[in-house]
Amino acid sequence: MPQIKESETYLQDLQSRLRQFAIDRDWEQFHAPKNLAMALAVEAGELMEHYQWLSEEQSENLDQQQLQTVGFEVADVFLFTVRLADRMGIDLADLVEKKIKINEEKYPVDKVRGSAKKYTEYASD
Amino acid sequence: MPQIKESETYLQDLQSRLRQFAIDRDWEQFHAPKNLAMALAVEAGELMEHYQWLSEEQSENLDQQQLQTVGFEVADVFLFTVRLADRMGIDLADLVEKKIKINEEKYPVDKVRGSAKKYTEYASD
Amino acid sequence: MPQIKESETYLQDLQSRLRQFAIDRDWEQFHAPKNLAMALAVEAGELMEHYQWLSEEQSENLDQQQLQTVGFEVADVFLFTVRLADRMGIDLADLVEKKIKINEEKYPVDKVRGSAKKYTEYASD
Amino acid sequence: MPQIKESETYLQDLQSRLRQFAIDRDWEQFHAPKNLAMALAVEAGELMEHYQWLSEEQSENLDQQQLQTVGFEVADVFLFTVRLADRMGIDLADLVEKKIKINEEKYPVDKVRGSAKKYTEYASD
Repeated sequence: MPQIKESETYLQDLQSRLRQFAIDRDWEQFHAPKNLAMALAVEAGELMEHYQWLSEEQSENLDQQQLQTVGFEVADVFLFTVRLADRMGIDLADLVEKKIKINEEKYPVDKVRGSAKKYTEYASD
Repeated sequence: MPQIKESETYLQDLQSRLRQFAIDRDWEQFHAPKNLAMALAVEAGELMEHYQWLSEEQSENLDQQQLQTVGFEVADVFLFTVRLADRMGIDLADLVEKKIKINEEKYPVDKVRGSAKKYTEYASD
Repeated sequence: MPQIKESETYLQDLQSRLRQFAIDRDWEQFHAPKNLAMALAVEAGELMEHYQWLSEEQSENLDQQQLQTVGFEVADVFLFTVRLADRMGIDLADLVEKKIKINEEKYPVDKVRGSAKKYTEYASD
Repeated sequence: MPQIKESETYLQDLQSRLRQFAIDRDWEQFHAPKNLAMALAVEAGELMEHYQWLSEEQSENLDQQQLQTVGFEVADVFLFTVRLADRMGIDLADLVEKKIKINEEKYPVDKVRGSAKKYTEYASD
Protein backbone atom coordinates (compact mmCIF):
# COMPACT_ATOMS: atom_id res chain seq x y z
CA MET A 1 0.00 0.00 0.00
CA PRO A 2 1.55 3.29 -1.08
CA GLN A 3 2.13 5.85 1.63
CA ILE A 4 1.20 9.39 0.71
CA LYS A 5 3.80 11.83 1.94
CA GLU A 6 2.12 14.02 4.51
CA SER A 7 4.06 17.14 3.56
CA GLU A 8 2.84 17.01 0.01
CA THR A 9 -0.64 16.21 1.16
CA TYR A 10 -0.86 19.26 3.41
CA LEU A 11 0.85 21.86 1.21
CA GLN A 12 -0.59 20.59 -2.06
CA ASP A 13 -4.06 20.52 -0.58
CA LEU A 14 -3.63 24.06 0.72
CA GLN A 15 -2.33 25.21 -2.65
CA SER A 16 -5.41 23.79 -4.34
CA ARG A 17 -7.77 25.46 -1.89
CA LEU A 18 -6.12 28.88 -2.25
CA ARG A 19 -6.11 28.53 -6.02
CA GLN A 20 -9.82 27.76 -6.00
CA PHE A 21 -10.40 30.71 -3.63
CA ALA A 22 -8.76 33.01 -6.20
CA ILE A 23 -10.53 31.45 -9.19
CA ASP A 24 -13.93 31.79 -7.50
CA ARG A 25 -13.33 35.51 -7.04
CA ASP A 26 -11.74 36.12 -10.44
CA TRP A 27 -8.54 37.14 -8.66
CA GLU A 28 -6.07 35.03 -10.64
CA GLN A 29 -5.61 38.04 -12.92
CA PHE A 30 -4.05 39.95 -10.02
CA HIS A 31 -1.85 37.10 -8.81
CA ALA A 32 1.19 37.42 -11.05
CA PRO A 33 4.22 36.21 -9.06
CA LYS A 34 5.55 39.78 -9.02
CA ASN A 35 2.41 41.00 -7.27
CA LEU A 36 2.25 38.07 -4.86
CA ALA A 37 5.88 38.66 -3.88
CA MET A 38 4.95 42.28 -3.10
CA ALA A 39 1.89 41.23 -1.10
CA LEU A 40 4.04 38.78 0.84
CA ALA A 41 6.56 41.50 1.69
CA VAL A 42 3.75 43.87 2.68
CA GLU A 43 2.36 41.26 5.08
CA ALA A 44 5.86 40.66 6.45
CA GLY A 45 6.02 44.39 7.18
CA GLU A 46 2.67 44.32 8.98
CA LEU A 47 3.88 41.39 11.06
CA MET A 48 7.11 43.17 11.94
CA GLU A 49 5.29 46.35 12.90
CA HIS A 50 4.05 44.71 16.09
CA TYR A 51 7.61 44.15 17.24
CA GLN A 52 9.40 47.31 16.12
CA TRP A 53 9.39 49.17 19.44
CA LEU A 54 9.50 46.13 21.71
CA SER A 55 12.69 44.79 23.26
CA GLU A 56 13.65 41.25 22.33
CA GLU A 57 12.51 40.16 25.77
CA GLN A 58 9.14 41.88 25.40
CA SER A 59 8.74 40.18 22.03
CA GLU A 60 8.92 36.84 23.86
CA ASN A 61 6.16 37.77 26.27
CA LEU A 62 3.11 38.80 24.28
CA ASP A 63 -0.23 38.22 25.98
CA GLN A 64 -2.88 35.92 24.50
CA GLN A 65 -4.66 38.75 22.68
CA GLN A 66 -1.43 39.97 21.08
CA LEU A 67 -0.39 36.42 20.19
CA GLN A 68 -3.62 35.95 18.25
CA THR A 69 -3.31 39.30 16.48
CA VAL A 70 0.31 38.72 15.49
CA GLY A 71 -0.45 35.06 14.78
CA PHE A 72 -2.94 36.08 12.10
CA GLU A 73 -0.21 38.18 10.48
CA VAL A 74 2.03 35.11 10.45
CA ALA A 75 -0.84 33.21 8.84
CA ASP A 76 -1.16 35.94 6.18
CA VAL A 77 2.52 35.60 5.30
CA PHE A 78 2.16 31.83 5.22
CA LEU A 79 -0.88 31.99 2.92
CA PHE A 80 0.82 34.29 0.41
CA THR A 81 3.93 32.09 0.49
CA VAL A 82 1.88 29.01 -0.41
CA ARG A 83 -0.13 30.96 -3.02
CA LEU A 84 3.09 32.22 -4.66
CA ALA A 85 4.58 28.72 -4.73
CA ASP A 86 1.44 27.55 -6.51
CA ARG A 87 1.59 30.32 -9.12
CA MET A 88 5.29 29.64 -9.67
CA GLY A 89 4.52 25.96 -10.18
CA ILE A 90 7.24 24.90 -7.74
CA ASP A 91 7.13 22.00 -5.28
CA LEU A 92 7.47 23.95 -2.04
CA ALA A 93 7.78 20.94 0.29
CA ASP A 94 10.57 19.57 -1.87
CA LEU A 95 12.47 22.89 -1.99
CA VAL A 96 12.07 23.27 1.78
CA GLU A 97 13.73 19.88 2.29
CA LYS A 98 16.52 20.78 -0.11
CA LYS A 99 17.08 24.12 1.63
CA ILE A 100 17.27 22.46 5.05
CA LYS A 101 19.92 20.10 3.70
CA ILE A 102 21.89 23.04 2.25
CA ASN A 103 21.72 24.81 5.61
CA GLU A 104 22.88 21.68 7.44
CA GLU A 105 25.93 21.45 5.20
CA LYS A 106 26.63 25.17 5.39
CA TYR A 107 26.42 25.34 9.18
CA PRO A 108 27.89 22.12 10.56
CA VAL A 109 27.09 21.79 14.26
CA ASP A 110 30.68 21.35 15.45
CA LYS A 111 31.91 24.45 13.65
CA VAL A 112 29.02 26.76 14.36
CA ARG A 113 28.21 25.96 17.98
CA GLY A 114 28.98 28.85 20.26
CA SER A 115 30.35 31.01 17.49
CA ALA A 116 28.53 34.32 17.34
CA LYS A 117 30.66 35.28 14.38
CA LYS A 118 29.44 32.31 12.40
CA TYR A 119 25.92 33.35 13.18
CA THR A 120 26.46 36.87 11.98
CA GLU A 121 27.73 35.45 8.73
CA TYR A 122 24.53 33.43 8.62
CA ALA A 123 22.77 36.79 8.41
CA SER A 124 24.32 37.56 5.07
CA ASP A 125 22.85 34.66 3.13
CA MET B 1 -8.56 4.90 16.31
CA PRO B 2 -7.94 8.61 16.22
CA GLN B 3 -6.79 10.12 12.94
CA ILE B 4 -3.89 12.50 13.18
CA LYS B 5 -4.55 15.59 11.14
CA GLU B 6 -1.98 15.77 8.37
CA SER B 7 -1.61 19.52 8.62
CA GLU B 8 -0.51 19.31 12.22
CA THR B 9 1.73 16.41 11.40
CA TYR B 10 3.59 18.28 8.70
CA LEU B 11 3.92 21.70 10.31
CA GLN B 12 4.48 20.40 13.82
CA ASP B 13 7.13 18.03 12.59
CA LEU B 14 8.83 20.83 10.66
CA GLN B 15 8.67 23.09 13.74
CA SER B 16 10.40 20.41 15.80
CA ARG B 17 13.13 19.91 13.24
CA LEU B 18 13.87 23.63 12.91
CA ARG B 19 13.86 23.98 16.71
CA GLN B 20 16.39 21.17 17.01
CA PHE B 21 18.46 22.73 14.23
CA ALA B 22 18.66 25.95 16.26
CA ILE B 23 19.32 24.17 19.58
CA ASP B 24 22.14 22.12 18.05
CA ARG B 25 23.86 25.33 16.94
CA ASP B 26 23.15 27.32 20.10
CA TRP B 27 21.08 29.73 17.98
CA GLU B 28 17.96 29.88 20.16
CA GLN B 29 19.52 32.91 21.86
CA PHE B 30 19.26 34.86 18.59
CA HIS B 31 15.72 33.73 17.76
CA ALA B 32 13.59 36.16 19.73
CA PRO B 33 10.31 36.69 17.81
CA LYS B 34 11.38 40.28 17.10
CA ASN B 35 14.53 39.07 15.36
CA LEU B 36 12.78 36.27 13.48
CA ALA B 37 10.17 38.73 12.21
CA MET B 38 13.03 40.90 10.90
CA ALA B 39 14.74 37.92 9.28
CA LEU B 40 11.46 36.94 7.65
CA ALA B 41 11.01 40.44 6.21
CA VAL B 42 14.62 40.47 4.99
CA GLU B 43 14.04 37.18 3.15
CA ALA B 44 10.80 38.56 1.71
CA GLY B 45 12.86 41.47 0.36
CA GLU B 46 15.40 39.11 -1.22
CA LEU B 47 12.58 37.19 -2.84
CA MET B 48 10.99 40.37 -4.17
CA GLU B 49 14.29 41.63 -5.56
CA HIS B 50 14.14 39.06 -8.35
CA TYR B 51 10.87 40.55 -9.60
CA GLN B 52 11.37 44.28 -9.11
CA TRP B 53 12.31 45.21 -12.68
CA LEU B 54 10.29 42.49 -14.43
CA SER B 55 6.86 43.07 -15.92
CA GLU B 56 4.02 41.04 -14.45
CA GLU B 57 4.09 38.92 -17.58
CA GLN B 58 7.83 38.31 -17.34
CA SER B 59 7.34 37.31 -13.71
CA GLU B 60 5.11 34.48 -14.95
CA ASN B 61 7.74 33.16 -17.33
CA LEU B 62 10.91 32.48 -15.38
CA ASP B 63 13.13 29.74 -16.76
CA GLN B 64 13.97 26.61 -14.76
CA GLN B 65 17.18 28.07 -13.36
CA GLN B 66 15.42 31.22 -12.17
CA LEU B 67 12.52 29.21 -10.74
CA GLN B 68 14.93 27.23 -8.58
CA THR B 69 16.78 30.35 -7.42
CA VAL B 70 13.60 32.22 -6.55
CA GLY B 71 12.06 29.02 -5.19
CA PHE B 72 14.82 28.78 -2.59
CA GLU B 73 13.97 32.33 -1.49
CA VAL B 74 10.35 31.26 -1.08
CA ALA B 75 11.60 28.31 0.99
CA ASP B 76 13.63 30.71 3.16
CA VAL B 77 10.54 32.80 3.88
CA PHE B 78 8.60 29.61 4.61
CA LEU B 79 11.23 28.32 7.02
CA PHE B 80 11.39 31.57 9.02
CA THR B 81 7.58 31.67 9.13
CA VAL B 82 7.45 28.18 10.65
CA ARG B 83 10.35 28.96 13.01
CA LEU B 84 8.63 32.14 14.22
CA ALA B 85 5.34 30.30 14.80
CA ASP B 86 7.25 27.80 16.92
CA ARG B 87 8.94 30.49 19.02
CA MET B 88 5.61 32.28 19.46
CA GLY B 89 4.07 29.00 20.63
CA ILE B 90 1.12 29.38 18.26
CA ASP B 91 -0.67 26.64 16.33
CA LEU B 92 0.03 27.83 12.80
CA ALA B 93 -2.13 25.27 10.99
CA ASP B 94 -5.07 26.23 13.19
CA LEU B 95 -4.60 29.98 12.64
CA VAL B 96 -4.26 29.41 8.89
CA GLU B 97 -7.64 27.65 8.86
CA LYS B 98 -9.21 30.44 10.91
CA LYS B 99 -7.76 33.09 8.61
CA ILE B 100 -9.09 31.34 5.52
CA LYS B 101 -12.54 31.29 7.09
CA ILE B 102 -12.28 35.01 7.91
CA ASN B 103 -11.27 35.73 4.32
CA GLU B 104 -14.17 33.68 2.97
CA GLU B 105 -16.64 35.70 5.02
CA LYS B 106 -14.98 38.98 4.19
CA TYR B 107 -14.92 38.36 0.44
CA PRO B 108 -18.10 36.48 -0.47
CA VAL B 109 -17.86 35.13 -4.01
CA ASP B 110 -21.06 36.70 -5.31
CA LYS B 111 -20.10 40.19 -4.13
CA VAL B 112 -16.43 40.14 -5.05
CA ARG B 113 -16.48 38.44 -8.43
CA GLY B 114 -15.50 40.76 -11.22
CA SER B 115 -15.16 43.73 -8.92
CA ALA B 116 -11.73 45.27 -9.21
CA LYS B 117 -12.69 47.82 -6.59
CA LYS B 118 -13.37 45.10 -4.07
CA TYR B 119 -9.98 43.69 -4.82
CA THR B 120 -8.26 46.96 -4.29
CA GLU B 121 -9.93 47.18 -0.91
CA TYR B 122 -8.56 43.72 -0.27
CA ALA B 123 -5.15 45.32 -0.57
CA SER B 124 -5.73 47.46 2.49
CA ASP B 125 -6.16 44.65 5.00
CA MET C 1 14.40 89.44 -4.35
CA PRO C 2 12.76 86.11 -3.57
CA GLN C 3 14.68 83.67 -1.42
CA ILE C 4 14.82 80.12 -2.69
CA LYS C 5 14.06 77.67 0.07
CA GLU C 6 17.09 75.48 0.69
CA SER C 7 15.01 72.36 1.12
CA GLU C 8 13.59 72.71 -2.34
CA THR C 9 17.00 73.53 -3.69
CA TYR C 10 18.59 70.39 -2.31
CA LEU C 11 15.85 67.87 -3.00
CA GLN C 12 14.79 69.35 -6.32
CA ASP C 13 18.38 69.42 -7.47
CA LEU C 14 18.86 65.81 -6.41
CA GLN C 15 15.63 64.80 -8.16
CA SER C 16 16.90 66.37 -11.39
CA ARG C 17 20.25 64.63 -11.17
CA LEU C 18 18.71 61.19 -10.54
CA ARG C 19 16.23 61.76 -13.37
CA GLN C 20 19.07 62.59 -15.74
CA PHE C 21 20.99 59.55 -14.49
CA ALA C 22 18.04 57.35 -15.48
CA ILE C 23 17.44 59.10 -18.80
CA ASP C 24 21.10 58.75 -19.77
CA ARG C 25 20.89 54.98 -19.24
CA ASP C 26 17.45 54.52 -20.80
CA TRP C 27 16.17 53.34 -17.41
CA GLU C 28 13.05 55.51 -17.18
CA GLN C 29 11.15 52.61 -18.76
CA PHE C 30 11.85 50.51 -15.64
CA HIS C 31 11.03 53.24 -13.12
CA ALA C 32 7.26 52.99 -12.83
CA PRO C 33 6.29 54.04 -9.28
CA LYS C 34 5.25 50.44 -8.58
CA ASN C 35 8.74 49.19 -9.39
CA LEU C 36 10.50 52.00 -7.51
CA ALA C 37 8.39 51.27 -4.43
CA MET C 38 9.52 47.64 -4.66
CA ALA C 39 13.17 48.63 -5.10
CA LEU C 40 12.87 50.94 -2.09
CA ALA C 41 11.47 48.12 0.06
CA VAL C 42 14.20 45.75 -1.16
CA GLU C 43 16.87 48.26 -0.12
CA ALA C 44 15.13 48.72 3.24
CA GLY C 45 15.41 44.95 3.69
CA GLU C 46 19.12 44.98 2.85
CA LEU C 47 19.63 47.78 5.38
CA MET C 48 17.72 45.88 8.05
CA GLU C 49 19.67 42.68 7.41
CA HIS C 50 22.73 44.18 9.08
CA TYR C 51 20.80 44.62 12.32
CA GLN C 52 18.65 41.48 12.50
CA TRP C 53 20.79 39.44 14.88
CA LEU C 54 22.27 42.35 16.82
CA SER C 55 20.92 43.54 20.16
CA GLU C 56 19.62 47.09 20.27
CA GLU C 57 22.76 48.03 22.18
CA GLN C 58 25.03 46.42 19.61
CA SER C 59 23.16 48.29 16.90
CA GLU C 60 24.29 51.52 18.55
CA ASN C 61 27.94 50.53 18.51
CA LEU C 62 28.92 49.67 14.96
CA ASP C 63 32.57 50.23 14.09
CA GLN C 64 33.64 52.68 11.37
CA GLN C 65 33.74 49.99 8.68
CA GLN C 66 30.23 48.78 9.51
CA LEU C 67 28.92 52.34 9.71
CA GLN C 68 30.11 52.99 6.17
CA THR C 69 28.65 49.73 4.85
CA VAL C 70 25.29 50.29 6.51
CA GLY C 71 25.45 53.99 5.67
CA PHE C 72 25.57 53.16 1.97
CA GLU C 73 22.40 51.10 2.42
CA VAL C 74 20.74 54.12 4.04
CA ALA C 75 21.89 56.17 1.05
CA ASP C 76 20.35 53.59 -1.32
CA VAL C 77 16.99 53.90 0.45
CA PHE C 78 17.29 57.68 0.35
CA LEU C 79 18.07 57.70 -3.38
CA PHE C 80 15.09 55.50 -4.29
CA THR C 81 12.84 57.65 -2.07
CA VAL C 82 13.86 60.80 -3.93
CA ARG C 83 13.62 59.04 -7.30
CA LEU C 84 10.11 57.79 -6.50
CA ALA C 85 8.99 61.26 -5.39
CA ASP C 86 10.22 62.60 -8.72
CA ARG C 87 8.36 59.98 -10.74
CA MET C 88 5.21 60.59 -8.69
CA GLY C 89 5.53 64.31 -9.39
CA ILE C 90 5.08 65.18 -5.72
CA ASP C 91 6.81 67.94 -3.77
CA LEU C 92 8.63 65.81 -1.21
CA ALA C 93 10.00 68.68 0.91
CA ASP C 94 6.49 70.10 1.19
CA LEU C 95 4.92 66.75 2.17
CA VAL C 96 7.68 66.19 4.72
CA GLU C 97 6.83 69.51 6.38
CA LYS C 98 3.13 68.67 6.36
CA LYS C 99 3.77 65.22 7.85
CA ILE C 100 5.91 66.70 10.65
CA LYS C 101 3.07 69.07 11.49
CA ILE C 102 0.58 66.18 11.53
CA ASN C 103 2.88 64.22 13.85
CA GLU C 104 3.26 67.22 16.16
CA GLU C 105 -0.50 67.50 16.50
CA LYS C 106 -0.98 63.76 16.88
CA TYR C 107 1.66 63.38 19.58
CA PRO C 108 1.51 66.50 21.78
CA VAL C 109 4.54 66.64 24.05
CA ASP C 110 2.62 66.96 27.32
CA LYS C 111 0.46 63.93 26.61
CA VAL C 112 3.09 61.65 25.11
CA ARG C 113 6.06 62.29 27.35
CA GLY C 114 6.95 59.27 29.45
CA SER C 115 4.05 57.23 28.14
CA ALA C 116 5.27 53.97 26.66
CA LYS C 117 1.69 53.11 25.80
CA LYS C 118 1.36 56.18 23.65
CA TYR C 119 4.51 55.18 21.89
CA THR C 120 3.27 51.71 21.20
CA GLU C 121 0.17 53.23 19.64
CA TYR C 122 2.53 55.33 17.57
CA ALA C 123 3.71 52.04 16.11
CA SER C 124 0.33 51.34 14.61
CA ASP C 125 0.18 54.35 12.30
CA MET D 1 32.56 84.67 2.79
CA PRO D 2 32.11 80.93 3.26
CA GLN D 3 29.30 79.29 1.35
CA ILE D 4 27.24 76.82 3.33
CA LYS D 5 26.46 73.73 1.30
CA GLU D 6 22.72 73.59 0.85
CA SER D 7 22.57 69.81 1.16
CA GLU D 8 24.11 69.89 4.60
CA THR D 9 21.90 72.79 5.57
CA TYR D 10 18.69 71.01 4.66
CA LEU D 11 19.46 67.51 5.90
CA GLN D 12 21.36 68.60 8.99
CA ASP D 13 18.58 70.98 9.92
CA LEU D 14 16.00 68.23 9.43
CA GLN D 15 18.09 65.81 11.51
CA SER D 16 18.21 68.35 14.35
CA ARG D 17 14.46 68.92 14.24
CA LEU D 18 13.63 65.21 14.28
CA ARG D 19 16.10 64.64 17.11
CA GLN D 20 14.44 67.38 19.14
CA PHE D 21 11.03 65.92 18.33
CA ALA D 22 12.14 62.59 19.82
CA ILE D 23 13.86 64.18 22.84
CA ASP D 24 10.75 66.24 23.65
CA ARG D 25 8.67 63.06 23.77
CA ASP D 26 11.25 60.91 25.56
CA TRP D 27 11.38 58.68 22.49
CA GLU D 28 15.14 58.47 22.07
CA GLN D 29 15.04 55.33 24.22
CA PHE D 30 13.07 53.56 21.47
CA HIS D 31 15.21 54.82 18.58
CA ALA D 32 18.07 52.32 18.55
CA PRO D 33 19.26 51.97 14.94
CA LYS D 34 17.94 48.40 14.91
CA ASN D 35 14.43 49.64 15.71
CA LEU D 36 14.57 52.57 13.31
CA ALA D 37 15.68 50.24 10.51
CA MET D 38 12.63 48.08 11.27
CA ALA D 39 10.32 51.12 11.33
CA LEU D 40 11.76 52.24 8.01
CA ALA D 41 11.08 48.84 6.44
CA VAL D 42 7.57 48.80 7.89
CA GLU D 43 6.85 52.18 6.30
CA ALA D 44 8.33 50.96 3.01
CA GLY D 45 5.84 48.09 3.18
CA GLU D 46 2.93 50.47 3.78
CA LEU D 47 4.04 52.54 0.81
CA MET D 48 4.30 49.47 -1.39
CA GLU D 49 0.87 48.21 -0.35
CA HIS D 50 -0.79 50.93 -2.41
CA TYR D 51 0.84 49.59 -5.57
CA GLN D 52 0.71 45.82 -5.09
CA TRP D 53 -2.37 45.08 -7.21
CA LEU D 54 -1.93 47.94 -9.70
CA SER D 55 -0.32 47.50 -13.09
CA GLU D 56 2.82 49.52 -13.74
CA GLU D 57 0.74 51.80 -15.94
CA GLN D 58 -1.90 52.31 -13.26
CA SER D 59 0.87 53.12 -10.81
CA GLU D 60 1.79 56.06 -13.06
CA ASN D 61 -1.73 57.45 -13.05
CA LEU D 62 -2.83 57.95 -9.46
CA ASP D 63 -5.37 60.70 -8.89
CA GLN D 64 -4.64 63.70 -6.67
CA GLN D 65 -6.17 62.11 -3.58
CA GLN D 66 -4.11 58.93 -4.01
CA LEU D 67 -0.96 60.93 -4.74
CA GLN D 68 -1.33 62.73 -1.42
CA THR D 69 -2.02 59.52 0.50
CA VAL D 70 0.92 57.68 -1.04
CA GLY D 71 3.03 60.84 -0.85
CA PHE D 72 2.65 60.87 2.93
CA GLU D 73 3.94 57.29 3.02
CA VAL D 74 6.97 58.41 1.01
CA ALA D 75 7.44 61.21 3.55
CA ASP D 76 7.29 58.65 6.39
CA VAL D 77 10.06 56.60 4.79
CA PHE D 78 12.06 59.78 4.23
CA LEU D 79 11.66 60.89 7.85
CA PHE D 80 12.80 57.53 9.28
CA THR D 81 15.75 57.51 6.86
CA VAL D 82 16.91 60.90 8.10
CA ARG D 83 16.23 59.94 11.74
CA LEU D 84 18.28 56.75 11.36
CA ALA D 85 21.17 58.62 9.75
CA ASP D 86 21.15 60.96 12.74
CA ARG D 87 21.20 58.13 15.27
CA MET D 88 23.99 56.40 13.33
CA GLY D 89 25.97 59.63 13.35
CA ILE D 90 26.65 59.44 9.62
CA ASP D 91 26.79 62.32 7.15
CA LEU D 92 23.92 61.31 4.89
CA ALA D 93 24.41 64.01 2.24
CA ASP D 94 28.06 63.00 1.93
CA LEU D 95 27.28 59.27 1.61
CA VAL D 96 24.58 60.04 -0.96
CA GLU D 97 27.15 61.86 -3.10
CA LYS D 98 29.62 59.01 -2.73
CA LYS D 99 26.98 56.46 -3.67
CA ILE D 100 25.98 58.40 -6.78
CA LYS D 101 29.62 58.43 -7.84
CA ILE D 102 29.90 54.68 -7.26
CA ASN D 103 26.76 54.12 -9.35
CA GLU D 104 28.12 56.31 -12.15
CA GLU D 105 31.28 54.24 -12.32
CA LYS D 106 29.42 50.95 -12.05
CA TYR D 107 26.94 51.77 -14.79
CA PRO D 108 28.79 53.77 -17.47
CA VAL D 109 26.32 55.31 -19.91
CA ASP D 110 27.85 53.84 -23.06
CA LYS D 111 27.81 50.28 -21.72
CA VAL D 112 24.44 50.31 -20.01
CA ARG D 113 22.30 52.20 -22.49
CA GLY D 114 19.69 49.99 -24.07
CA SER D 115 20.88 46.89 -22.30
CA ALA D 116 18.06 45.28 -20.35
CA LYS D 117 20.46 42.62 -19.17
CA LYS D 118 22.69 45.22 -17.55
CA TYR D 119 19.67 46.61 -15.81
CA THR D 120 18.63 43.25 -14.47
CA GLU D 121 22.12 42.88 -13.05
CA TYR D 122 21.59 46.28 -11.46
CA ALA D 123 18.77 44.63 -9.56
CA SER D 124 21.14 42.32 -7.76
CA ASP D 125 23.16 45.00 -5.97
